[in-house]
Amino acid sequence: MIKKEKYSAAILVIGDEILSGRTQDTNSNFIAKEMEIIGIDTSQIRVIPDEKNTIIESVNELRVKNDYLFTTGGIGPTHDDITADSIAEAFRVDLEINLEAYETLKKYYEKIGSEFNDIRQRMARIPKGATLIENSISAAPGFKIENVFVFAGIPKIMKAMLSNSIKHLNKGKLIHSISVKIDAVEGDIAKLLKSLNDENENIKIGSYPFFNSKNDFGVNVVIKSIDKEFLILAEEKLKNYLSKNSFNYK
Amino acid sequence: MIKKEKYSAAILVIGDEILSGRTQDTNSNFIAKEMEIIGIDTSQIRVIPDEKNTIIESVNELRVKNDYLFTTGGIGPTHDDITADSIAEAFRVDLEINLEAYETLKKYYEKIGSEFNDIRQRMARIPKGATLIENSISAAPGFKIENVFVFAGIPKIMKAMLSNSIKHLNKGKLIHSISVKIDAVEGDIAKLLKSLNDENENIKIGSYPFFNSKNDFGVNVVIKSIDKEFLILAEEKLKNYLSKNSFNYK
Repeated sequence: MIKKEKYSAAILVIGDEILSGRTQDTNSNFIAKEMEIIGIDTSQIRVIPDEKNTIIESVNELRVKNDYLFTTGGIGPTHDDITADSIAEAFRVDLEINLEAYETLKKYYEKIGSEFNDIRQRMARIPKGATLIENSISAAPGFKIENVFVFAGIPKIMKAMLSNSIKHLNKGKLIHSISVKIDAVEGDIAKLLKSLNDENENIKIGSYPFFNSKNDFGVNVVIKSIDKEFLILAEEKLKNYLSKNSFNYK
Repeated sequence: MIKKEKYSAAILVIGDEILSGRTQDTNSNFIAKEMEIIGIDTSQIRVIPDEKNTIIESVNELRVKNDYLFTTGGIGPTHDDITADSIAEAFRVDLEINLEAYETLKKYYEKIGSEFNDIRQRMARIPKGATLIENSISAAPGFKIENVFVFAGIPKIMKAMLSNSIKHLNKGKLIHSISVKIDAVEGDIAKLLKSLNDENENIKIGSYPFFNSKNDFGVNVVIKSIDKEFLILAEEKLKNYLSKNSFNYK
């Protein structure tokens, strides 16, 4: 991969339990934050059911459109864990018993005194050509195939796998940001934000109103730039305007 | 729309702040739960940036593939609020000042003693042919155009708009479910779950391991069916097996 300024990633969350609302997905937020830190733009987060064709289609769409694709979920031992099968099909490679994964799992189950039965051996099935990603929590590995990183869905295990994957990623230019919390409604500052945003293409301004109760509302304004100088200039202009127009902010 | 047993919905979350990890999206989880209650299957949740072409493409893909599409975010007054513009383009209709929305906003700003300036008037711009969705919190309405429901991103306002939209939705057959929390690891019960799942096509079994610390792990097994009888039978079989094999559950 040629060194670029910006890299993009997509996150594919695989799991019926998220779509039914039973489980609140927090994995994508965690991954997105980690990407932000290393200058990788998350371009899309997609949650899909445990359905083979849907997984294959989404993987093949998102891996082509992005520098990286992270998937979470569906790599356990049960009948609804079909991520590894689907990824193998997406890449048109065989799903085979990976000897390294097999040995790791065998040792783990010996150590904890559980049977390494045929169901558990399913977790050693890895698409041909993939590299294992260590799972320091419960042994069953994730894997990386080309630009696709396949993680477990359990947050603790996902985090361990992500942390073991960062070394494989190209880092983009860091994005600096400042955040100003303003006692105003958006309509009062929208014009200023637009002109600030329009007059400088090196910054990007986001405006995030919050509205928690009658007495607690306002706007968080976030200014981002890969260049600190532009950020400082924009922040100064914003704060001057706010002071002149008697808005409280912090 | 012809009355069917099952309806599907997609949720499109529009907002850079979710993709940067700054904000944890909770809207999609809330909507998914509400859909589950009225028998509508959430087929996909997708988070995309505040980019017009991306919004147009996703809206046009998801509205065709699903009975309903809900969008959240991007309908405020600031420069990064481009959802209404994008939806109008997606449907190839004009974005025009909606008189009803205009009057509602005008009255609201009079009442709270704020100026109804040209920036705020932006929020009265609604795609031609759309029906307004009332915003009982801060006046600026959402809207419904064909099978697409356009909601605000602020959770409190989104919830008010969703609640005002439920009447427009066809309800599917209710899904019944039971959940059993088992002191086991997935590998110990995976075979049973598979055979239970395979022998009855009227139920769907999900297996969700949790792993919070060394002393707190297990599996939540969720069995779903639109037919209560099959559910009860499957639950009995599962619990008999668990008892016979000395697994604790509740």
